[in-house]
Amino acid sequence: MPLDQTAAIEITAFSWVPDFAKGLVRDLRVRWALEEAGLAYRVRLFDAKDKRAESYLREQPFNQVPVFDDGATQMFESVAIALQIAEGSEALMPRDPAGRARARTWAIAAINSVENVIDALTDIDAFHAGEDWARARRPQAEEAVRRRLTLLAGWLGEKEFLEDRFTVGDLMMACVLRELRDTGLVAEHENLKAYLARCEARPAFQRALSDHMAAFERPAEAA
Amino acid sequence: MPLDQTAAIEITAFSWVPDFAKGLVRDLRVRWALEEAGLAYRVRLFDAKDKRAESYLREQPFNQVPVFDDGATQMFESVAIALQIAEGSEALMPRDPAGRARARTWAIAAINSVENVIDALTDIDAFHAGEDWARARRPQAEEAVRRRLTLLAGWLGEKEFLEDRFTVGDLMMACVLRELRDTGLVAEHENLKAYLARCEARPAFQRALSDHMAAFERPAEAA
Repeated sequence: MPLDQTAAIEITAFSWVPDFAKGLVRDLRVRWALEEAGLAYRVRLFDAKDKRAESYLREQPFNQVPVFDDGATQMFESVAIALQIAEGSEALMPRDPAGRARARTWAIAAINSVENVIDALTDIDAFHAGEDWARARRPQAEEAVRRRLTLLAGWLGEKEFLEDRFTVGDLMMACVLRELRDTGLVAEHENLKAYLARCEARPAFQRALSDHMAAFERPAEAA
Repeated sequence: MPLDQTAAIEITAFSWVPDFAKGLVRDLRVRWALEEAGLAYRVRLFDAKDKRAESYLREQPFNQVPVFDDGATQMFESVAIALQIAEGSEALMPRDPAGRARARTWAIAAINSVENVIDALTDIDAFHAGEDWARARRPQAEEAVRRRLTLLAGWLGEKEFLEDRFTVGDLMMACVLRELRDTGLVAEHENLKAYLARCEARPAFQRALSDHMAAFERPAEAA
């Protein structure tokens, strides 16, 4: 679904972020979910360097992006938003209750059992690369990610997706694995590498990524 | 609802953990949600020191607790499980769709916008206190938590709960704030301190905590 500045659904995103964050900011997750669900949306952009108006904290208490507003529901947290979109879309959730519970489980596992371990490593690489403590800590942080990816690869095995079809859980896991793009760690497992490529090849992801990247060429709203 | 070893719902938990983790392990979140919802459950216990059977990875791919199984649905991830319980319980979710979306948002925000920042600090204190890198890093990690708590306290203001009533979002946020119990950081905000005390005073929490702690006096199942 192309971007449509008259759509009922609005999300927030950034018109500028540092290069290392391009292609990773959390609005991408929501854009992808909206594309899979075939829902048109519009975007309100901020320059991440600018101080946002105090009033934005009433929309997003932690001053981040994205927020989601469809006129009836105001939400934040990319995973909560993606799950909300998924609940109404068979493209992102199977119909059976047990399968839906598994899809929700994996969406949460992506951030709470994988990204939480990745964070310690990517935080070092993005913000502390030159610091003594970071040089001492990095090998431990990398090993922790490696152990977690080994468990994930063990679960995935020969399967195409985490369960028996693509769901919002795969969408979220793929976004989290992308955060390791500068490390080579995903490629240590052939099946994880192929899984990530399979998710990224989806037309909905490609449209979402393209619009996410195009935003960095557009002017910001008044912050 | 007291524990009932004949109940349909089973969760896994630990019969032994290091002292610093007692009262914080993720099964507590699920026990609390079950108590609020008035659902009986049974517990399968493991000693955290023991190697679990390889087959447990089919229930919990990251080899953690809790898992949830009610005969129809098998899940892991404490937040996913708590949300699943909350969907069927007015004690944990309001009836209106917009309010339900807010409750889900806060449950995710607890782990993804607060706990993710707390992790860096509690990881240092629990596992790396004596290491040089940790001594150098700790002040930054503490400041990051302080900034996040200031935003959370700003949102909470004079409110009793994060939204206009207690929800699964408060349940999750209280569990996350408890992880700072050895730091004094929550008490820097009178409103957050009172909020946490208000959540912890709930009878359902007290029952859940009591059963969680009692498990550390019980023998483990064969792992």
